[in-house]
Amino acid sequence: MNVAQGSAHTNLNVLLETLREIVGPRGWVDDPGRLEPHLTEWRGRVRGQTPVMVLPATTAETASIVQACAAAGVGIVPQGGNTGMCAGAVPDATGTQVLVNMARMNSIRAVDPQDFSMVVDAGCVLADIQQAAADQGRFFPLSLAAEGSCQIGGNVATNAGGINVLRYGTTRDLVLGVEAVLPDGRVFNGLRTLRKNTAGYDLKQLFIGSEGTLGIITGVALKLYPDPGPVQTALLALAGSGDAVTALSVLRERLPDDIQAFEMIGRSAMDLVLRHIPGTRLPFEESADWYVLVDVTAPASQFTDALAQLPPAIALLDAVVAKSDGERKDIWRLRHSISEAERREGAGIKHDVAVPIGAIESFLAEAELRLTEHVPGVHPVVFGHVGDGNLHYNAHLRGDLPDADRGRVGDEVTRVIYGLVTGMGGTISAEHGIGVLKKEALERYGDVVELDTMRTVKRALDPAGIMNPGKVL
Amino acid sequence: MNVAQGSAHTNLNVLLETLREIVGPRGWVDDPGRLEPHLTEWRGRVRGQTPVMVLPATTAETASIVQACAAAGVGIVPQGGNTGMCAGAVPDATGTQVLVNMARMNSIRAVDPQDFSMVVDAGCVLADIQQAAADQGRFFPLSLAAEGSCQIGGNVATNAGGINVLRYGTTRDLVLGVEAVLPDGRVFNGLRTLRKNTAGYDLKQLFIGSEGTLGIITGVALKLYPDPGPVQTALLALAGSGDAVTALSVLRERLPDDIQAFEMIGRSAMDLVLRHIPGTRLPFEESADWYVLVDVTAPASQFTDALAQLPPAIALLDAVVAKSDGERKDIWRLRHSISEAERREGAGIKHDVAVPIGAIESFLAEAELRLTEHVPGVHPVVFGHVGDGNLHYNAHLRGDLPDADRGRVGDEVTRVIYGLVTGMGGTISAEHGIGVLKKEALERYGDVVELDTMRTVKRALDPAGIMNPGKVL
Repeated sequence: MNVAQGSAHTNLNVLLETLREIVGPRGWVDDPGRLEPHLTEWRGRVRGQTPVMVLPATTAETASIVQACAAAGVGIVPQGGNTGMCAGAVPDATGTQVLVNMARMNSIRAVDPQDFSMVVDAGCVLADIQQAAADQGRFFPLSLAAEGSCQIGGNVATNAGGINVLRYGTTRDLVLGVEAVLPDGRVFNGLRTLRKNTAGYDLKQLFIGSEGTLGIITGVALKLYPDPGPVQTALLALAGSGDAVTALSVLRERLPDDIQAFEMIGRSAMDLVLRHIPGTRLPFEESADWYVLVDVTAPASQFTDALAQLPPAIALLDAVVAKSDGERKDIWRLRHSISEAERREGAGIKHDVAVPIGAIESFLAEAELRLTEHVPGVHPVVFGHVGDGNLHYNAHLRGDLPDADRGRVGDEVTRVIYGLVTGMGGTISAEHGIGVLKKEALERYGDVVELDTMRTVKRALDPAGIMNPGKVL
Repeated sequence: MNVAQGSAHTNLNVLLETLREIVGPRGWVDDPGRLEPHLTEWRGRVRGQTPVMVLPATTAETASIVQACAAAGVGIVPQGGNTGMCAGAVPDATGTQVLVNMARMNSIRAVDPQDFSMVVDAGCVLADIQQAAADQGRFFPLSLAAEGSCQIGGNVATNAGGINVLRYGTTRDLVLGVEAVLPDGRVFNGLRTLRKNTAGYDLKQLFIGSEGTLGIITGVALKLYPDPGPVQTALLALAGSGDAVTALSVLRERLPDDIQAFEMIGRSAMDLVLRHIPGTRLPFEESADWYVLVDVTAPASQFTDALAQLPPAIALLDAVVAKSDGERKDIWRLRHSISEAERREGAGIKHDVAVPIGAIESFLAEAELRLTEHVPGVHPVVFGHVGDGNLHYNAHLRGDLPDADRGRVGDEVTRVIYGLVTGMGGTISAEHGIGVLKKEALERYGDVVELDTMRTVKRALDPAGIMNPGKVL
């Protein structure tokens, strides 16, 4: 061990002693068994190390942790439910980054039904927030697969999307205020519930979607909505993806505010579900190239009328409106089972891209053309949120492809897809963020001026680079 | 003249020559008569000077202008329709700042009804944008008094509010993408129409609401909505401001997505209108302490049912639903005439504050108490947007107050109001921005960490301080 290493180790040991004093025994985890699930991204693609995971109980403790790490020049990795898709919440492999998990900060601070707002700790689980709103007759619209374990701080840090974006927007649209600890350990107190505020720059926007690289979110003020009432669910069979886009456009005109979800599922994704997931079946005879799952809050008669009156130019092959809660769940099960069906089919390459809604059809056609030409034998499995132009364009490689070639071929598929979306004014990451796994792609496909400006902002707010180092930029 | 001044003048002359070459004769205004309306804030409270107003025709010309000014170290003042409330778009009195007016960049670049989006030049007048959307069967919800002359670039730069915020949010919520020239003259191209994008920091948020201090907005991608259909308008007479808040809460439960506007008008504001504006009258006998103007897009029968079923705890003294377009206009005329009625009454002190919606009643009670105690004889004139907690809390001073005392007394009123809203988690500027006129107040009432972080961002993006110098911070 040379002197510099020795001194670094001593510094780290002094820091750890300080951190232990700040959080106490209940906020201290260094047992390898208990650390394990916090060091690995949930799909197992990235594994890190850390000397300790600290769990602050208050904003003040979080600030003290950051102050101590800043003074020692040690990197901090903020972590919520660790359900992210891009490994943005796990430490790197050096074992020198302190993991700060927010799970102990899980109080609902206030729910104000008349203000249509609530204020919560960053470590609150999303499902608990939905429930706390519902208990007061209000609706918090953010909803996604991981809602039983993801934390709102992570949702805000990644600007999570989910199934209700068409009607209510992304997490960004649902955030009224943010409280965060800055990289220098000071507390930014932007925890207001105001709908309108033009008193200077709207700094909370910086923390939303920056994946913990500009500060640790400790509290959030959220927008609530009136209960939208009972939901009607339909499954449509359509000839083309363009029919799905046109159908949404027409239905939005007929039912301006009532469309809650409008999910498209390609034939190959649906086939995987029907093949691999026991008990699933289509609610009609007709099979089709595209299926659309629609949730609306309009009265049933109004919804069926609107469906019946879709113009004949839309090639609607079949349609079923659920007549019971059971039928609703069966339809939604088709959608929710896609990822599991893909897993059973075998590893695929996942892409979470978005294009302008009006460009969905041409993107899909062009992607298929280019893949056929450049990476023959690839089998696209596509589903997504029509109202956001957000497509999960996954691809399964030929089964007979030698293992040695799979990485290279997979990268080629990704290059084709990312190149195409970028050229169409789209994005390589619609709702999953960048984290570690898409850093190279952002560097490659991002706009030079835009990336440069992001780095300027990062350097200005975190000059020592201690906040979630190695993520996003 | 000393040497330094001489050299500064020479530099300025060289710069002006360069600017003239960039914009050509059609983009060059130095005639005092033509400059005049662009040098004065529209209420006449601030008057500046400039050597020239340049009007770029393209984004590239705008970038060249900024590059030239940056090289010469000369400040730039971006200007749209110059309808702002805080003098954020006029140059200072030194006569050394170049005024960049965006009026020539007024093309609707694209309207895509299926994408529910449009892309426009920053200099487009708001009313033209509304019309271009309507021409394609779509609705652009931003609506405010100055819509016939304000430009969208200014709306975005100030995060304008207006009358439809309750349902559709502020300008920020309606912006999908921004194109802007950075202080170093490079073009930030964030002109995407995507609903979801998590590829790094959402930099467009920095330009929205920063009043031209971080760059010049040259283009905007906007969110469009389906036409919400015919509007029903009602005027309610209520006993207390708390009744207005509760009525909104209950109506939002009954008509979750249909409430477009919910404006409250205090007795003194209504009295001024009835006294000063010929042809105005209440649509019912009852006079009241509070009036509420409601716009909904629900069917008339559903609306009247919902009003009839308001719980008895709400002291609803009277209510009228407009039966014709003429009656609608008469009701709205009461609201739209308040500013003019105030002008006729004589100079008042204006405040554009917001508090949490649930705190409106206690704010109004406490404000009256404190004013009575500290600044006796002041006459509050209050109206606002209940759904946003945004109150225009204006105050008229006693007529017999000596002129010499009016400034000091006015400042005392402002101190009482700003101190109160700040203590209640509110804001001293809900929708009018900071500009020049509220800079001192922001400094005084703003949070230290927040202001400090704003300055850090400003310094990072505009280290030479050439972009709208002297505004906001």
